[in-house]
Amino acid sequence: MKVTTFGEVMMRLSTPNFSRFPQATQFDINFGGGEANVSSSLAILGISANHVTRFPDNDLGLTATNIFKKFGVGTEHIIYGGDRIGIYFVEKGAAMRPSKVVYDRVNSSFATLQSADFNWEEILKDTTWFHFTGITPAISEAAFQACLEAAQTANRMGITVSADVGYRSNLWKWGKRPNEIMPQLIENCDIIVCSKGDAADMFGIIPNDEKGSFKSVCKQITARFPKVKKILNTKRGQISASHNTLLGRCWDGTQMLETEAINIPDIVDRIGGGDAFMAGYIYGELIYKDCRKALEFGVAASALKHTIEGDFNLVSVQEVEAVVKGDVSGRLKR
Amino acid sequence: MKVTTFGEVMMRLSTPNFSRFPQATQFDINFGGGEANVSSSLAILGISANHVTRFPDNDLGLTATNIFKKFGVGTEHIIYGGDRIGIYFVEKGAAMRPSKVVYDRVNSSFATLQSADFNWEEILKDTTWFHFTGITPAISEAAFQACLEAAQTANRMGITVSADVGYRSNLWKWGKRPNEIMPQLIENCDIIVCSKGDAADMFGIIPNDEKGSFKSVCKQITARFPKVKKILNTKRGQISASHNTLLGRCWDGTQMLETEAINIPDIVDRIGGGDAFMAGYIYGELIYKDCRKALEFGVAASALKHTIEGDFNLVSVQEVEAVVKGDVSGRLKR
Amino acid sequence: MKVTTFGEVMMRLSTPNFSRFPQATQFDINFGGGEANVSSSLAILGISANHVTRFPDNDLGLTATNIFKKFGVGTEHIIYGGDRIGIYFVEKGAAMRPSKVVYDRVNSSFATLQSADFNWEEILKDTTWFHFTGITPAISEAAFQACLEAAQTANRMGITVSADVGYRSNLWKWGKRPNEIMPQLIENCDIIVCSKGDAADMFGIIPNDEKGSFKSVCKQITARFPKVKKILNTKRGQISASHNTLLGRCWDGTQMLETEAINIPDIVDRIGGGDAFMAGYIYGELIYKDCRKALEFGVAASALKHTIEGDFNLVSVQEVEAVVKGDVSGRLKR
Amino acid sequence: MKVTTFGEVMMRLSTPNFSRFPQATQFDINFGGGEANVSSSLAILGISANHVTRFPDNDLGLTATNIFKKFGVGTEHIIYGGDRIGIYFVEKGAAMRPSKVVYDRVNSSFATLQSADFNWEEILKDTTWFHFTGITPAISEAAFQACLEAAQTANRMGITVSADVGYRSNLWKWGKRPNEIMPQLIENCDIIVCSKGDAADMFGIIPNDEKGSFKSVCKQITARFPKVKKILNTKRGQISASHNTLLGRCWDGTQMLETEAINIPDIVDRIGGGDAFMAGYIYGELIYKDCRKALEFGVAASALKHTIEGDFNLVSVQEVEAVVKGDVSGRLKR
Amino acid sequence: MKVTTFGEVMMRLSTPNFSRFPQATQFDINFGGGEANVSSSLAILGISANHVTRFPDNDLGLTATNIFKKFGVGTEHIIYGGDRIGIYFVEKGAAMRPSKVVYDRVNSSFATLQSADFNWEEILKDTTWFHFTGITPAISEAAFQACLEAAQTANRMGITVSADVGYRSNLWKWGKRPNEIMPQLIENCDIIVCSKGDAADMFGIIPNDEKGSFKSVCKQITARFPKVKKILNTKRGQISASHNTLLGRCWDGTQMLETEAINIPDIVDRIGGGDAFMAGYIYGELIYKDCRKALEFGVAASALKHTIEGDFNLVSVQEVEAVVKGDVSGRLKR
Amino acid sequence: MKVTTFGEVMMRLSTPNFSRFPQATQFDINFGGGEANVSSSLAILGISANHVTRFPDNDLGLTATNIFKKFGVGTEHIIYGGDRIGIYFVEKGAAMRPSKVVYDRVNSSFATLQSADFNWEEILKDTTWFHFTGITPAISEAAFQACLEAAQTANRMGITVSADVGYRSNLWKWGKRPNEIMPQLIENCDIIVCSKGDAADMFGIIPNDEKGSFKSVCKQITARFPKVKKILNTKRGQISASHNTLLGRCWDGTQMLETEAINIPDIVDRIGGGDAFMAGYIYGELIYKDCRKALEFGVAASALKHTIEGDFNLVSVQEVEAVVKGDVSGRLKR
Repeated sequence: MKVTTFGEVMMRLSTPNFSRFPQATQFDINFGGGEANVSSSLAILGISANHVTRFPDNDLGLTATNIFKKFGVGTEHIIYGGDRIGIYFVEKGAAMRPSKVVYDRVNSSFATLQSADFNWEEILKDTTWFHFTGITPAISEAAFQACLEAAQTANRMGITVSADVGYRSNLWKWGKRPNEIMPQLIENCDIIVCSKGDAADMFGIIPNDEKGSFKSVCKQITARFPKVKKILNTKRGQISASHNTLLGRCWDGTQMLETEAINIPDIVDRIGGGDAFMAGYIYGELIYKDCRKALEFGVAASALKHTIEGDFNLVSVQEVEAVVKGDVSGRLKR
Repeated sequence: MKVTTFGEVMMRLSTPNFSRFPQATQFDINFGGGEANVSSSLAILGISANHVTRFPDNDLGLTATNIFKKFGVGTEHIIYGGDRIGIYFVEKGAAMRPSKVVYDRVNSSFATLQSADFNWEEILKDTTWFHFTGITPAISEAAFQACLEAAQTANRMGITVSADVGYRSNLWKWGKRPNEIMPQLIENCDIIVCSKGDAADMFGIIPNDEKGSFKSVCKQITARFPKVKKILNTKRGQISASHNTLLGRCWDGTQMLETEAINIPDIVDRIGGGDAFMAGYIYGELIYKDCRKALEFGVAASALKHTIEGDFNLVSVQEVEAVVKGDVSGRLKR
Repeated sequence: MKVTTFGEVMMRLSTPNFSRFPQATQFDINFGGGEANVSSSLAILGISANHVTRFPDNDLGLTATNIFKKFGVGTEHIIYGGDRIGIYFVEKGAAMRPSKVVYDRVNSSFATLQSADFNWEEILKDTTWFHFTGITPAISEAAFQACLEAAQTANRMGITVSADVGYRSNLWKWGKRPNEIMPQLIENCDIIVCSKGDAADMFGIIPNDEKGSFKSVCKQITARFPKVKKILNTKRGQISASHNTLLGRCWDGTQMLETEAINIPDIVDRIGGGDAFMAGYIYGELIYKDCRKALEFGVAASALKHTIEGDFNLVSVQEVEAVVKGDVSGRLKR
Repeated sequence: MKVTTFGEVMMRLSTPNFSRFPQATQFDINFGGGEANVSSSLAILGISANHVTRFPDNDLGLTATNIFKKFGVGTEHIIYGGDRIGIYFVEKGAAMRPSKVVYDRVNSSFATLQSADFNWEEILKDTTWFHFTGITPAISEAAFQACLEAAQTANRMGITVSADVGYRSNLWKWGKRPNEIMPQLIENCDIIVCSKGDAADMFGIIPNDEKGSFKSVCKQITARFPKVKKILNTKRGQISASHNTLLGRCWDGTQMLETEAINIPDIVDRIGGGDAFMAGYIYGELIYKDCRKALEFGVAASALKHTIEGDFNLVSVQEVEAVVKGDVSGRLKR
Repeated sequence: MKVTTFGEVMMRLSTPNFSRFPQATQFDINFGGGEANVSSSLAILGISANHVTRFPDNDLGLTATNIFKKFGVGTEHIIYGGDRIGIYFVEKGAAMRPSKVVYDRVNSSFATLQSADFNWEEILKDTTWFHFTGITPAISEAAFQACLEAAQTANRMGITVSADVGYRSNLWKWGKRPNEIMPQLIENCDIIVCSKGDAADMFGIIPNDEKGSFKSVCKQITARFPKVKKILNTKRGQISASHNTLLGRCWDGTQMLETEAINIPDIVDRIGGGDAFMAGYIYGELIYKDCRKALEFGVAASALKHTIEGDFNLVSVQEVEAVVKGDVSGRLKR
Repeated sequence: MKVTTFGEVMMRLSTPNFSRFPQATQFDINFGGGEANVSSSLAILGISANHVTRFPDNDLGLTATNIFKKFGVGTEHIIYGGDRIGIYFVEKGAAMRPSKVVYDRVNSSFATLQSADFNWEEILKDTTWFHFTGITPAISEAAFQACLEAAQTANRMGITVSADVGYRSNLWKWGKRPNEIMPQLIENCDIIVCSKGDAADMFGIIPNDEKGSFKSVCKQITARFPKVKKILNTKRGQISASHNTLLGRCWDGTQMLETEAINIPDIVDRIGGGDAFMAGYIYGELIYKDCRKALEFGVAASALKHTIEGDFNLVSVQEVEAVVKGDVSGRLKR
């Protein structure tokens, strides 16, 4: 049982505490990426996981690789080349002040990869589940191409394929619009994460019932992409930068499962919360083989991620299960 | 369009995180002062601003000057001399434990200034708005004298004059009581910030209607000081050291405008909140030329200040306007 | 008036901010122990206090001693020997993620003390109040023996004896079960802190009325241990790792006094909260000689402890009294 | 009297203390660039200075601008646009382990400037001295073009022009070789910094006397570029990463002036040492109007730079003059 | 080609900068051990390496494992159990003040291992070289036993065996003296690191020629332990805590090879220097298959280790080779 | 055997590492004073010591007191009152850049003491040795008066009196010149520290032999002040801010004892070095009762102080004795 993910990893440089950019004299260093956060979180939960990406062949690429090794993520299919590691700068918000991200990922080693760099049959050997996100095809044509080949190869090899189709408006600069591209990728997917907004941006699908329901969107998606069996979505209640709520939904083709909303006060770091949900959901599907349990595990894992600095979800299965069982008391563990 | 402020700047030394004084092994260094916080916040909002003060001619005075330069505040009328920069020490509270300030400002370079050091006609050239606070006249007779000359000169030059008359009981040690002094200053003001308590302490004015209303105080003030057109006030709901609410009021001579209360949970640093309100209000008057809009901008700016470490309000106009429009969700900005 | 406490002191190594263990590159250093936290908190409140323990004769033992000296705790009866200072590692939780403690106290200098090391008549000279906890007898047979001799000597000398009987399941490895041991110690106590669960674990006493009330437990305890005059207990509402509530109860032989619950949001450090309650209660008994006042002082002191990093309760009498009087507004003290 | 410089400014991210890249969890933030270091050092020495560059219109560009303002460098001709600020990563060496720089400047806002962005007549108004380095033409064709226009305009306006022609082998990727480009620039210069190696790389000039002397190189340079009056050079003795020596030389057309070598043990930060020399030399020329004095001032300023973290040379004229006078005792100043 | 090492790993807690223990408020966290430092350094140099040890099954054991993974050391034969990870505390010296180490390793998970826990045939499969030190048999009888079985199994499997026999007087508390134990281990070794002092302590061998030469000791060792082919030794010139010199020697059975002494000023961290030498030597033997080259590589690697914080030698082959070639100039690498 | 010292204690705020003032965002907090450094260093060496001073009755005065308690210095005769604790700001130099001190001690609680605040008979009870410095009389008339009364009382009580007469040109602002004042104090001294320069400044004594020898100064001093038995002096070789040498001299009335110069490279913190010498000398006199030994102990103690951050000399007797015996190798202590 092995999960393989493919996507860009960025160095994340965040100002300490609540410093704004012009105040900071230091950056805290982390690494993350929408797909890598999934494989790292799975590795930390004890699932064999492998991340495929491209790093520059310099000290920063080496350092990034080390971090994945540290948390047990397989790094043997990482390739090296290109000019630079993508960077994103983070300033943490509080109360009514939002956290802020400044991207500096143009021309990264990942963006300048060539699809021929990857032998997917070789890479996906022994893989049970392949995961990517809508960020990857948005980065460059070659990244899209590599992603498509990966998904198609995974399909041929009988591997479960999932995608978080989240639309990022500040990417997609290489010439194609998401709706020209994403459908080809989604055709190969078994499970997707997709919001109402994403469906509109990516597939031009909008609700067609009176209530404008998400369910009506899901039905259209499964009609258009018959391979897609489940559509996941999280609904974030945004009370403040420091206080959110979160619930998860899953359209399984027949019904819309929905968890209770979990309260997330005193947020430590919100970034990577969606990826932690995905990792938790995959864990649940692989171990419990039950969609509702997977959904609950995903939401609980995501809630815990909000209490941890950095993109990776450093939690154990027992910790997530305690939250699933409703223990959110945070009672001291001696 | 230029705002000039006059007042003492202190070095602020605060214990990191929530350390109490006997625990601290380091102090974080910031600089601030009731008037300087107004000019720095205005400069950061893009308004031309100038601060007038007196620093010692040593490395600490130089460092303080550099900080104002960094944020674009004009420093060309700062004068140098005297023995020391005033200092205040801060210990940050949480929940039911208050933040604590220990002042060490006696004998500062500002306190020992001479009123002849300042050529106000020269300094106020091109100035649109002059602002001072009730702290300045409380520091020393010469500081009062300089402040009075500034206000009178501003008046003669047709410059709008504002004052935050807040009473600080631990100052006023040079021989006069506030009510002997403040009236002469307020005579020259167009706009003042003044609470019910301040009115009693500074002018001996107490409510004269049955409800003991602030409105009745305002009416007496404008009767006594005909130049004063508007009286501002903020009302802070003090739920805990980490959680406040804030609303703003303005008596414009006819009616009492009042904003909605804004919720300020998860406070990062409350100091400078009042000055951020004043800066926001001045911004609003200068740009929107609308009292209600200015009031709302001031309250929103003040709320944001509570999420930022240090005395200066490091926020952009867009960020304040988002809060004015009611977006307090703190949703991540990518 | 002097309070003497006896028990193990550990070096506490905590990851900074909210770092999980695998993320941390530094530990913050503090020292603490269930009894030492009581004497340090009392010394900080201005009560003469003395702590008795055993440290290794090395730089870490010296450093630990220095910390007690720093806060005015008498250290003249600390003895030196053995291999090591016990350590506990702390990772701070947030929201639904609990704080976590990893103990490393086996074979500590305290655990390997010999009861003959202590001359209690000498040590307790001038002592008014002797306090210990259920941790000490749980550590080793000799620690139990020394504690018993201390309590018996204190009794003979007419010194008030108190004990916090809290049961720690991860100790008690030296061969005896708590219920074989604790009764001998409690026989010598005037005041104990004991929850329903502790009573069951330590004395095999369970509620014997229909409601399963704590009062019925207290009655059985005072029946069995006639010297015990008061039974204290705190009830913690565990909303999250960052938000608790706390109330105190005292069975004084006739009635169950109970304070209002105090709200404790935005917790800085919860560890030592129970010891701060005990110290506050002892302060109240010694100074106010009134059980209800002591209880209220204890709860307020404990609440304040949650806003302070480290095991020691760095608060003044005035600060506690403000909270007792209901001022939990955390209003800035200038 | 005003000095204007033109060139790229990078964000410098350095690992704290002596951490290697894979160890670091934080980067210290500084800003610097071969030309900007000259103007900032001059501003700190009290000379009016102005830096011209291009920053991205984001928080990092704003932060960089603030730093120049802080130290009094004129920023009014900085333009904003493009994708990113160039970055360089630094790991500090010790003893036999070299410091290491990883550049990440491709595609920076400076590299993608357009020469039409700059109105040099306007920018250079009031300028006495214009300085650039061989890095600028190496970055992009447009940067070369802008630099050439600046130098030609300066010439027309009778402004002294200096250049540090240092060859950086990891740049020059835009299609031209240095020797195709640099001569056009140097034609406009009065003073250049140029080593024997640079002369070979940039102009194809090699020593033509038996000793292979630098003097013979200088003679050829002045023959080829008649406007060049002085050729400066520093000679670094590289004892270890922590210990260097430095002397300065100047060919003034007739003779080779040479300072004594200054000993630089216990280096704090070597980066920017060459720029500090240039700034010191310019200061000396402007103030003392004496080549030897300027040379000595430059070498002393450079030596002091090695004791200061960051690219900017935070020293006063008095401090440099003390070293010029031979006081290298570092005796405590009370 | 794979190197396997066996031995205790301790958590190293060092005071920052040059703080003495009573000053420190934080400890920097590293991990290290005489053998683990060898495998980690080899892994960093690109040699496949594996470390065998026993950690507690808690967050600290997990964290320690992660660190080895991070640097590419195989951790699949680490076993988990026992009470605690050994700790050592470090205070860094300067000039005439020595660095100081306080050990707290009694009762560690490694010390309480059982020799049956390890299946050496399985563990050593594919191993080319097995390395241990004289620390391991000094810790406990079972550790000695496990080490002996490992060495004997390695011998049977034709694996090269090396040992650093360094005598640590503060260990050896389990009942046997080194000279009763070490000979059995050394019988199985091909290469040992052994000083004159070690030879006396461990084997009772003292020089038997007039000069008291090390060579005469080596001859006796090889006579007594015929399997031993090479005896290595480093000679440290101890100028101060911040300045050492180092040379390496190797008796190859016929002659005494000796490197030049390398100067090591401005020491960053001296701990692990001996292990870095051993790792470097092993690298040299495996890659160059030349004793002199291996010796030079070992000494250069060790010198570089002194410039790096922590026990692991974070250097590349190119960096070591530069020093071997005599480049100790520390010239900035751009 | 008890040593009592009297003098001002300042809060020392130093920029971290080698930051210059305009770079610093934090200050490290220490406390120190010429006399307090002597008592603290003696207490750390195990000698009973007591410091007498005046602190403000606020959190900073409390924190300062705690620090003395921490290191075992008696604080029972510290009095509380006045406005503020004196502060001095420190910026650490390196190589040819000097460390820099900015004083901010005017109007401190010590400067505004009243001599009647101190009951010297009570304070000096059980005291063996009283020590003060030339800083105290320089601060204010009352401080001089209190110092004089202390010295006279000590004399009457048969207590040894020592003084470090060092002249600080930036003090002495209260109206008298040192030579009007110091003689009265020195009349009461048994042992003084005095350089050639101090003798001229304080007593108007200049060498009266041809060589201009210090010996000739000493003879004149003892002639003028017959109670003075010994005159101490240290001679600092100032190679750079990071490298000094130090030797000690003592005129014992008959001969000039002189130690060898000790080499002090890689200085960590030079401040307090002279006070560490005095404390070491007093220790030597009290314990060894031998002037040469005391001198050597003083110089060794002072050398070690240079390796320790902060004003207090955190060294043990064994550590000093090792240096006295010539072990300056800094060899790692395991």
